[in-house]
Parts: sequence; C-alpha cells; structure tokens
Amino acid sequence: MINKKFIAVIGGNQPSSQEAKVAEEVGRELARQGATLICGGLGGVMEAACKGAQSEGGVTIGILPGDSRQAANSYVQIPIVTGIGHARNLAVVKSAQAVIAIGGSYGTLSEISYALNSGIPVIGLNTWSLSRKGHQDNSIIPAQNPIEAVDKALNLATS
Amino acid sequence: MINKKFIAVIGGNQPSSQEAKVAEEVGRELARQGATLICGGLGGVMEAACKGAQSEGGVTIGILPGDSRQAANSYVQIPIVTGIGHARNLAVVKSAQAVIAIGGSYGTLSEISYALNSGIPVIGLNTWSLSRKGHQDNSIIPAQNPIEAVDKALNLATS
Amino acid sequence: MINKKFIAVIGGNQPSSQEAKVAEEVGRELARQGATLICGGLGGVMEAACKGAQSEGGVTIGILPGDSRQAANSYVQIPIVTGIGHARNLAVVKSAQAVIAIGGSYGTLSEISYALNSGIPVIGLNTWSLSRKGHQDNSIIPAQNPIEAVDKALNLATS
Amino acid sequence: MINKKFIAVIGGNQPSSQEAKVAEEVGRELARQGATLICGGLGGVMEAACKGAQSEGGVTIGILPGDSRQAANSYVQIPIVTGIGHARNLAVVKSAQAVIAIGGSYGTLSEISYALNSGIPVIGLNTWSLSRKGHQDNSIIPAQNPIEAVDKALNLATS
Repeated sequence: MINKKFIAVIGGNQPSSQEAKVAEEVGRELARQGATLICGGLGGVMEAACKGAQSEGGVTIGILPGDSRQAANSYVQIPIVTGIGHARNLAVVKSAQAVIAIGGSYGTLSEISYALNSGIPVIGLNTWSLSRKGHQDNSIIPAQNPIEAVDKALNLATS
Repeated sequence: MINKKFIAVIGGNQPSSQEAKVAEEVGRELARQGATLICGGLGGVMEAACKGAQSEGGVTIGILPGDSRQAANSYVQIPIVTGIGHARNLAVVKSAQAVIAIGGSYGTLSEISYALNSGIPVIGLNTWSLSRKGHQDNSIIPAQNPIEAVDKALNLATS
Repeated sequence: MINKKFIAVIGGNQPSSQEAKVAEEVGRELARQGATLICGGLGGVMEAACKGAQSEGGVTIGILPGDSRQAANSYVQIPIVTGIGHARNLAVVKSAQAVIAIGGSYGTLSEISYALNSGIPVIGLNTWSLSRKGHQDNSIIPAQNPIEAVDKALNLATS
Repeated sequence: MINKKFIAVIGGNQPSSQEAKVAEEVGRELARQGATLICGGLGGVMEAACKGAQSEGGVTIGILPGDSRQAANSYVQIPIVTGIGHARNLAVVKSAQAVIAIGGSYGTLSEISYALNSGIPVIGLNTWSLSRKGHQDNSIIPAQNPIEAVDKALNLATS
C-alpha cells in the first residue's frame, strides 16, 4: 500500500457558499499534506473538496452510489461505481482512516454514524451534534477551521 | 400486497432491561394492531420486539447482516439473509412505512438517519436527539410509552 | 422460525409465454407444499411465480432492488425494499434454502453464481448451462417440469 | 477524471501456477499501457495481477468485501473497504470499462454475469463458457494470451 493516508470528506450536495469554501480549503490542505481524499463523488461539499485537492495536485476518489461514472464530479480522478445507492455511505467511511464532516444533512449523519460505529474518528466543522438518552455524545471532535480539521484528522488516522 | 402495515423496530443489541421490556411491549402492540414487524433480526431490542410480536400471533421479519439464517433470533419467522453487513441497515428502514427507535447506539443512529433521509417517519422512545449546525432538529417524533409509539407509527405509516 | 421452507424462484423479467406458465406452476406447487416463495419482486418470471403461489394461498416475498415498495408486482405480499440495486441478487439467493432457475438472462446468471458460491442448491428449468476451462460444470441440477423442480428443491432445502 | 482507462482483472483466489503467471503478465501489460487496475483486492489472481502492475509502476485499486483494509494484498495501493461482502462484486466490474477474467470459480462467474448485464465487455483467458437454453452464448470474448487480452480490453474500454 502506498505510504499515504486516506481521509474522507463528507457533507451535503447543497452546501452554503461558506461550507463550499471550507470544503475546498479542506481539500487543498489534505493534498498539501499528501493525503488521499475519499468522498461520495457527487456535487456540493464533495465537489468542492475534490476541486481543492486537485488544485494542489492531490489524489481524489469518488465512491459513487449509482450505475455510472458519468455522475462523478469533474474533479474525481478515481471513480468507484458501486451501484448500491446510499448503502455506499458505509464504503465511503470504511475506506477512510478518519472522516471530516462539513455541515450536511441526514445522508451525512448516516456516514457519521457508520464511522463512529466502526471506530473511525470523525472531525466536525459546523455539523451535527448528538445526544443519546438525554446525555450529550461528544464523539464528534470539533474543529474551528479547515487547517485544524485536517491536522486532527491526520493525527488520528493511525489504523 | 396483503393489507398490513410494515413497521420497523430498531435499537441496540445490548439494551437495558427497561429497554428490553419496552421493546417487547412494542412488539406485542404491533401484533395486536395487525402490523408486520421488521427488524435487523439479531438480539437485544430486536429479539425482545420479535418475542412480543410472536406472543400475540404477529408476523416477524428479520433482515440479517451476515451470511446465515442461523444468526436470527428465535422469534424471527421470516429471515432475510442479505450478506451485506451493516449496509443492510438501509433495507431495514426502507422496508418499513414507519420506524420505532428504542434507545440504541451508532448502528441505530445510522438507521434513523437513513429513515429521515428517505422521508420515513421515526418515532423515538428514549433514543437519540439531534442538532444540526447548532439548531435542534425535531424530526424524531417522541413517544412516552410503547402504546403511544405504536399508535403514532401506525398513523404515520401511509406511504 | 416458522416450520417452512424458503425457496427462491429466479428468472428474467421478459420471459416467453411458456416460461411464464412454468413459473406460475412452480409457484402453485411451492404453495401447495407449504413452502414460502422468495423472488426479486419484479415482473416476468418473478410475477408469474408469485401469482401462482398466491392462487394456492402461499406466502410471497419480493426482495426489491430499488427504493420503493411500489415497484413490487401485485402478488408480492411481503416487499423487502433494499435500495441496493442488483446487489440485492445476493440476498435473493442467500435468503433461500434452494433456488429454482427458469430461463433467464445475465441477472439470473449472477444469482445462480451466488447460490453455487454459497453452496445453495440450484434446480434449472431450461436455463443456463456452464463450462469451466473447457469442462462441463454440472452443478445446476436439471428438472424436466415444474413439479419435478419443486420436489428436488424441497428435498435439497435442508440447511 | 484522469486520462486513464480502468480495467478490472477477476479470477479465483486459488489459481493454478499457470493462471497466476498469466495474471501477473496481464497486470504488467496494463501498467505498461497506462491503465489503472481494479480488482477485488484479495489473493490469488487478484494479488498476482496487482504484483505485475506494481512492478511496472501501475496504479492498483482493490475493492474489498470485508471491514478492514488489512485484508488487501500487499500490492494494492488504493484499498476500498466496502463492508458488503460478495455484493462488492458488482462494484468491481461496474468501476471498470472492461473486464479480463482469468480462470475463476463461481465468484468470478457472478462478476462476469454482472459485467455482461451492465454492457461492460468481458475478455476471457481460459475461463467460463456459457450456454443459455441450449444455445452457445458468445458474449465472453476469448483471448489467447495476456497481451491479446489487454489489447482487446483497452480497445473496448470506451464508455
């Protein structure tokens, strides 16, 4: 296996402009630090992160839900065509050593859940927060900005 | 299609004794009201709900993650063997017209996420609560007891 | 688990009229012998088999590829909505103790392959035949008519 | 998307020594011609093909069935961890523009079936041959040696 870290960036396909900027900067910083970017391969946060990574010469992998590589955003270099719909959310996080969540809706929440269930660290940038049976769950590690999120993700990406 | 409603009961495989009692009563009430119970087929909340449903003559379906029907709890009448691991969580909720969540950990949270993402109503009995970007998300409909949970689920199970 | 055998019927969604008649008779005979019918839930051979089973009071399960129970044929009593596309072919055969293949195209062949790979007996009614590296593979057990196919399937459905 | 072709190499995990040699040469030739190799990530034919590709500086992707990247053979550079078992066979072929099958058993046959069902060309090196309803099916394109197989695959990898 090449000596690289695999980091997933997850988030919605209809981000705010601020979230898109954050995602692009996360992608750039991952590439600068030599990490390989994994995402769901579609638009919004996924596309912005890939765009950022590609601009710095990084490698981008898109794990697509549908039946065609044509659905990948134009910054995905390696499209994985799963044909299994949203069940591919499991593969997005399991293929990563750490996950960075940016905003996002219920699809993103399913990915956060799968990551935490698998013991994969999740770094959050203004995303979901969780309580279970009335008690705060602090498993999502907060970050204040893209650089901090990438630093934390890479430090935790050990398995 | 037979004139029945399909309701999923989700929750952890290591529930408290109180959660197990709640799950069993949910299963009984679903059966009394003629609904078909869908679950992940394993132990804990899933087993307690199936036990309750079977005791009242209800039908129980277990959508299993692994490769063998032998993993089903002994109250599952119809084991579906998917072989796709936790990706079967998607099938558990998509096969239901409403979902009742009892306690639960991250696997349960992935099922809640998938249900909400698919527009399937989720009724919660002392389970997860969610905030997104600092704002409370009230999509999980609370219930105070098993009877109320089943009533709400059946009323919302229209699609 | 209820004291029933689970038998999958697989085949194309555009069968010849003769294949559709065979499928319907297979469904009827499975129901007469008390077996539960599992199929992919869609049209063609799947629909004909479900129609036959229902006409004799049998139970029919359709494991659907898409996101909606509405895609099930009208003789499916228990629709399982997987959302995983053709990857559900694995669940169709793994949920059965024996498989009856009627004609069929490449989708059916993928199901035959999965069944044989899992050690699940496959009975063939004018379906695929296989050679590997120039040698005939006789794993698909031939049957001459629906009654013989059902008898062989039920005799082999022991695991 | 990078200007590369994606070719899947499929085959058993217990190949003959001759099959392993063929797989390694297929991997080498794919790399020489600039193609990216996709496979199921495990041993046997998959490992031999990855070894060959890596020896010529090629890129290797392993789409794994289980829950851990540790299961990848040591020549996989990009491990995709799906967690969906044999249902990942669908992703292996759908992620490719053409497929080269070397020997193989029922798992390989399921991949051949999925590829043909999706309209993805399959080149065969001493692998399965198929008859449907008593008529030979010539969809698997034969090749006599690794170089011919790679040439045919690359020529057909247009979609």
